Amino acid sequence: MNCEILCVGTELLLGNTVNTNAAALSGLLAELGVNVYWHTAVGDNPGRLKEAVAVAKGRADLIVTTGGLGPTYDDLTKNVLAACFGRKLEYHPEEGEFLKAWFAKNASIRFTPNNLQQAYLPERCTVFHNDWGTAPGCAFEEGGVRVIMLPGPPNECVPMFRACAVPYIRSLAGEVILSHQIRVFGVGESAVEDRLRARMEQMQNPTLATYAKVGEVMLRVTAKAPTEAEAERMCAPVVDMVKAELGDAVYGVDVESLEALCLGLLRERGLTFATAESLTGGLIGARLTALPGASAVYKGGAVTYCNEVKAGLLAIDRDMIEAEGAVSYETAAAMARGARAAVHADLAVSATGLAGPDGDGVHPVGTVFVGLADGENVWVRELRLGTRRERVRALAANHAFDMLRRYLQGLPIMME
Amino acid sequence: MNCEILCVGTELLLGNTVNTNAAALSGLLAELGVNVYWHTAVGDNPGRLKEAVAVAKGRADLIVTTGGLGPTYDDLTKNVLAACFGRKLEYHPEEGEFLKAWFAKNASIRFTPNNLQQAYLPERCTVFHNDWGTAPGCAFEEGGVRVIMLPGPPNECVPMFRACAVPYIRSLAGEVILSHQIRVFGVGESAVEDRLRARMEQMQNPTLATYAKVGEVMLRVTAKAPTEAEAERMCAPVVDMVKAELGDAVYGVDVESLEALCLGLLRERGLTFATAESLTGGLIGARLTALPGASAVYKGGAVTYCNEVKAGLLAIDRDMIEAEGAVSYETAAAMARGARAAVHADLAVSATGLAGPDGDGVHPVGTVFVGLADGENVWVRELRLGTRRERVRALAANHAFDMLRRYLQGLPIMME
Repeated sequence: MNCEILCVGTELLLGNTVNTNAAALSGLLAELGVNVYWHTAVGDNPGRLKEAVAVAKGRADLIVTTGGLGPTYDDLTKNVLAACFGRKLEYHPEEGEFLKAWFAKNASIRFTPNNLQQAYLPERCTVFHNDWGTAPGCAFEEGGVRVIMLPGPPNECVPMFRACAVPYIRSLAGEVILSHQIRVFGVGESAVEDRLRARMEQMQNPTLATYAKVGEVMLRVTAKAPTEAEAERMCAPVVDMVKAELGDAVYGVDVESLEALCLGLLRERGLTFATAESLTGGLIGARLTALPGASAVYKGGAVTYCNEVKAGLLAIDRDMIEAEGAVSYETAAAMARGARAAVHADLAVSATGLAGPDGDGVHPVGTVFVGLADGENVWVRELRLGTRRERVRALAANHAFDMLRRYLQGLPIMME
Repeated sequence: MNCEILCVGTELLLGNTVNTNAAALSGLLAELGVNVYWHTAVGDNPGRLKEAVAVAKGRADLIVTTGGLGPTYDDLTKNVLAACFGRKLEYHPEEGEFLKAWFAKNASIRFTPNNLQQAYLPERCTVFHNDWGTAPGCAFEEGGVRVIMLPGPPNECVPMFRACAVPYIRSLAGEVILSHQIRVFGVGESAVEDRLRARMEQMQNPTLATYAKVGEVMLRVTAKAPTEAEAERMCAPVVDMVKAELGDAVYGVDVESLEALCLGLLRERGLTFATAESLTGGLIGARLTALPGASAVYKGGAVTYCNEVKAGLLAIDRDMIEAEGAVSYETAAAMARGARAAVHADLAVSATGLAGPDGDGVHPVGTVFVGLADGENVWVRELRLGTRRERVRALAANHAFDMLRRYLQGLPIMME
């Protein structure tokens, strides 16, 4: 199945909104074994949208639209798509009742009759009810082309795709497509490919593909089979093979991120956690606390952007900092120990280094020390993380979470 | 001039990479008065790229491509575009010499002859030299259609667009297009539009447009004139009118963000700054320290994700926290005062509240108190910031920076 994602919204063309839907849906479609060959974005303009649909009809078997399903005059995706495929819009009473009830409950938002426009959908379609907002989506087939329409806000579009479009597409395939994501930290994409290439090239079902993320590699194993159990059985040996080949660098299968893994492991063990951040300036704490439930394990910590605060908040010996330098093994170790003690946590991580662009005249930009302390020991990684400020900071945070997860998984904490 | 942005790269279609180039270039083209009507992304596939170019040629006056200019076999944008417009590629010796010198300097990256592919560009083109990487871009015109080709990595594509494509497009227009961005915090987009709509509708040159960002509004004033001085003279009264209409809510013109404004103002005044973060978990510090030069003003602070740490690191009276609650005016005030004292900074901000999804049984999710303390006074804003965790946290950080900038600009710190 060859797919075009057609995003509708003038805000995309003004550069005001980054089109994250196209990337998110592409990733989900890839997991389903659907080939996404085209992304198109057009504005809220009926003429240009009509032309874009004509182009898409001529080349794709599946068109997934985002945006333009709302109640205002510039929401025209349904009208244009229905017209392009020779269908009328019809009122869906159950969606209409849902909208009336929604507005009754959300009394602060005034109900206007145009809101009922959202309950009009192309005739003979499968309705995708919207549990995350008001505008429903839908799917239909006409002349060999399948159309799926989803709302534009990413926090409606992506969950609705998972909940409604994924089962719809799976049912079309007549077979189960199942995939697992293997997450790897500490080995580069080219090294992963070098080790696995020969086997990847031989594989047809399941398939194995690699994707680079910031400082990470993700491998996706995808199997097609008549049943889910059969697809699972086909994936299992491939997952095992990758784990055997890459060892400790595999931090999880189907986990969201290093920090999400750490949060889960800390909760399981009933352990608490603290941070002492210099070059990351709060990023490690911010990434952990972006996750719901962080408060169960994260107690807090210190952002010690200058030496005086390292000494003050974390009770680190000033003379030691002067002697060893703020960017040093010893300071990273003292920060982790100090944060653990100051916050009365079971474990603490620390990060100190040079994110650039300015250096300290001693170390090259990108020099970073990341520490981990428990009640007895402290471990420090010395790293060179390049020269791009945002990347240096993000990688330093990744290393902190990687040390923490290795500790919690009972693995050696130092790499190589 | 009607433009299509054509992004080439399989990584976009796999969902592995979010297409930030399309948004960034769209914003810059809008500033130049160019109408971007289509975004298209295709993979590294010559057949589909050729078809996409044919579609673009049929509807756009300007095609801007990103990606596919590198040295490997799947970098095919130049070959396909040149073929579509009936041009040959020719070797540009000055770019070839640059590449040889670049590889001599970056000895760790091995030079292979295929790297010289990058010095081949369509005949009779304007070369855009790449100061941020190796692959040059270019521009040419054929049959009334202009083509601009840029490399794919955003840290090459966007600066090259600014440095090379902006002057090229300006020179085509035969007139100067100049714009200013007015940044607004604390007034919603619809309220801004209500106050300015009548005047916006009357305006033709300069134009005034509004754009919503997370918790912010941006207004763009764009003037076209024969000279830059003339365009500046035309913009000035519109900027003044918006400032007069929106008052203190305008936090700056042509500034990058609230935190960048704060960093500049703190540096000007030689003042230092601290943070005490609860629900934001380090986000305020992380946003400030994402900016180069933050170390000149930011000393650090505490992430106090539990009450014990609020009491411990910031010397806040535990009984007071128990009595008033962690989410309270008094706790926010004590956190700001405590961080200022603990870190010996001139100013401190604090944030405490409920980001959700769980509440505390007392306040609704989204209840946030944001504080600011100097040596004498403390100010606290009580806010209701909705129910989406990431948005609540981002808005809380915005409010902290807004209070700080108002303090530094000598404005009333409390809103309304």
